[in-house]
Amino acid sequence: MDLQEKTIESRKVYDGKVIRVRLDKVLLPDGREGMREIVEHSGAVAVVPVDHDNRVYFVRQYRKPLEKLLLEIPAGKLEPGEDPQECAKRELAEEIGFTPGELRQMSFMYSSPGFSDEKIYLYLARDLTRYRLENDEGEFLEVECIPLADALDMVLDGTIEDGKTIAGILLASHFLSL
Amino acid sequence: MDLQEKTIESRKVYDGKVIRVRLDKVLLPDGREGMREIVEHSGAVAVVPVDHDNRVYFVRQYRKPLEKLLLEIPAGKLEPGEDPQECAKRELAEEIGFTPGELRQMSFMYSSPGFSDEKIYLYLARDLTRYRLENDEGEFLEVECIPLADALDMVLDGTIEDGKTIAGILLASHFLSL
Repeated sequence: MDLQEKTIESRKVYDGKVIRVRLDKVLLPDGREGMREIVEHSGAVAVVPVDHDNRVYFVRQYRKPLEKLLLEIPAGKLEPGEDPQECAKRELAEEIGFTPGELRQMSFMYSSPGFSDEKIYLYLARDLTRYRLENDEGEFLEVECIPLADALDMVLDGTIEDGKTIAGILLASHFLSL
Repeated sequence: MDLQEKTIESRKVYDGKVIRVRLDKVLLPDGREGMREIVEHSGAVAVVPVDHDNRVYFVRQYRKPLEKLLLEIPAGKLEPGEDPQECAKRELAEEIGFTPGELRQMSFMYSSPGFSDEKIYLYLARDLTRYRLENDEGEFLEVECIPLADALDMVLDGTIEDGKTIAGILLASHFLSL
């Protein structure tokens, strides 16, 4: 069976700063018609910064959709045309004030493929040099440093709740053979 | 610093079947005002079904936002008021046709906390009994069975691209001490 869904009609329903929303009328594999609600996003990078003592730098920030603070690895949206590797370096500098000597792409992930095209590139940063502590304008966060082994426990016991952070910490544990 | 963002004004911009979108004007920690675009979602469950031979059942389905087929663990949206455990059982029956003798919540994750409130409950299903193969009306997918060790390799080499599936396979490997 050909599972592809051909677009019959596409309508923009919201055009925002971070997201755009469109409604696609599609032809389903059985010949019937269906509707797909799609959130367009420019993509993002997330970085697991691990220092010489195997400690990970996190940021704690308020997430309005959840109305609570969340512990996450440093991350940020890709600017139009920006190279993910450059974006990773920028976010590290802006959010935790470090320059990585080594930056390795571990993987990438689609965060919510059912309704969004958001793609997140996951990096491992090592050989960290303190650069300066400069927060993005309009970005409010606290930096927190946690041993990787403890962070892994926090993923397994549910203390860490952010998807890209769960994936990032588990991947970093594999790549660093913890 | 109090990082909370208080809502000054909230406006619905889209009310769909799967998502609702609203635009919140907020008071930032420094006293200035900002806007937050928020995608509301009813939440979902995702299940790693592992059989007696440590093989995982996946579904391959077309994801319109990406315009391609994606290999994912069985998953689905929560109905209003539905218990996540019941939803996990329902999706297992509907998507791969199995009833689990053991169903254990491994964790949960926020898929895109920057712009969405979607929360995904992650389950591990064991002791699988074939029930029947019945696909959801309007759901088109192919079932695929892959040894857990191979699935883990596919996460590490980037073949598996879906966030909840990456987290689910890595978590299942830990819980089953692979």
